[in-house]
Amino acid sequence: MLAVSTPPSFLRIADETLSDLALFADIPAAVRMHFAEKARHKALHKGQILFLQTEPAEWFYVIRRGWMKLFRETLEGQEAVIDMLCEQHVLGETALFHGDAYSYSAQAVEPVELVMLPLSMLRYHLEKTPKLAVNLLAHTARKDRQRSHEVEQMTTQNAAQRIGCFLLKLCDKDAPQGSTQLYLPYDKTLIAARLGMKPETFSRALAKLKADLALQIQGATVGIPNVAALTEYSCNHCSQGTPF
Amino acid sequence: MLAVSTPPSFLRIADETLSDLALFADIPAAVRMHFAEKARHKALHKGQILFLQTEPAEWFYVIRRGWMKLFRETLEGQEAVIDMLCEQHVLGETALFHGDAYSYSAQAVEPVELVMLPLSMLRYHLEKTPKLAVNLLAHTARKDRQRSHEVEQMTTQNAAQRIGCFLLKLCDKDAPQGSTQLYLPYDKTLIAARLGMKPETFSRALAKLKADLALQIQGATVGIPNVAALTEYSCNHCSQGTPF
Repeated sequence: MLAVSTPPSFLRIADETLSDLALFADIPAAVRMHFAEKARHKALHKGQILFLQTEPAEWFYVIRRGWMKLFRETLEGQEAVIDMLCEQHVLGETALFHGDAYSYSAQAVEPVELVMLPLSMLRYHLEKTPKLAVNLLAHTARKDRQRSHEVEQMTTQNAAQRIGCFLLKLCDKDAPQGSTQLYLPYDKTLIAARLGMKPETFSRALAKLKADLALQIQGATVGIPNVAALTEYSCNHCSQGTPF
Repeated sequence: MLAVSTPPSFLRIADETLSDLALFADIPAAVRMHFAEKARHKALHKGQILFLQTEPAEWFYVIRRGWMKLFRETLEGQEAVIDMLCEQHVLGETALFHGDAYSYSAQAVEPVELVMLPLSMLRYHLEKTPKLAVNLLAHTARKDRQRSHEVEQMTTQNAAQRIGCFLLKLCDKDAPQGSTQLYLPYDKTLIAARLGMKPETFSRALAKLKADLALQIQGATVGIPNVAALTEYSCNHCSQGTPF
């Protein structure tokens, strides 16, 4: 089979860990075990950079816990957040189709645990294991749909409506009507960046949401007195309807 | 092999036509011929709808000639253009991962020729032919990179710079320095929509570009007196540098 050198300092992980990842669902056991032999556990502290854009890529990653920020920097040094990923998401794998270099930078926004795996092994098994390629295609198709939804939102929704949609996605799907309370997954500066807004635009839009819909916001806690009203406020300006 | 019913009224296409498509590059001949048996030629006139968002999906398409617009409509009826695709691009295939329904609408913006193929056959062969899955992954990865670039641009560039980038992508890669002349691929209203701008924002930004960089625009013809100046104007605000 394929020979891959691995840094000895990282913790090895068990085959069962890979079984829990959607990327490896229904993959033949022999293939999964081959990955498990080379897979390593990786822990990042808050703020730690995992890799930088244009860096030669040898590894790809699957998140097990925590939030990662994907970003790019313009030649003038301005940062654009292009994605925020949480558990089960794959990152760095597109380097396979990008000249073996990462096409974005990745940073932990809180303590994060990942599985790291060799890109050469992904390339090898994609060509041999159709189910692995189909799993990765499904992952990429989901991301593509999400991104095209973002492009749509930037075109058709105002800032307050986009924040409203972001909040609704955090709501409990089982109780989407009356009042509810939820917790922001990462800090407001990042939410603004994720939604492609300047911090001052975000603050103004949040103030408008609070005024229009009586939202209560204290730190990371958001109280929504009327979820149905927020849905009407945000979702009529979207092709997808309610995000529940 | 898989049985697929096909409408008899469409023109059948030759195996060689599929060989010209990147999606079928290096696919085993037997698989390509299986697709060719069921593939049909489809011609659309300007403005013709190919399929609508949420419609049950039975076919996917590869463009052979012309521009297709992918769009979504909000519940209030506002249209958001989420992509413009030209030859070699695949469309409708993500329905495989979206409950067998199209996740956007598709319309021809000029006379368009496509190859139409059964989604059920794509599903069948993706599970059996790794190279087909890898080709589709490469296509999706390119689109993902392009989309994340758009999200970045919406965050970091002003409207004039985004139009500048759009024009630079149309420039001849071999002569990217002095003056040049190019042709807009589709009409200005669509370019505005593709860039996620309201028509009035687009007009103002185009006027600014004309004033700042002495662009000459007559109908679909754009004269750029100094490509290097346009590059500096647009690309310093982007992580990718010049699009050449």
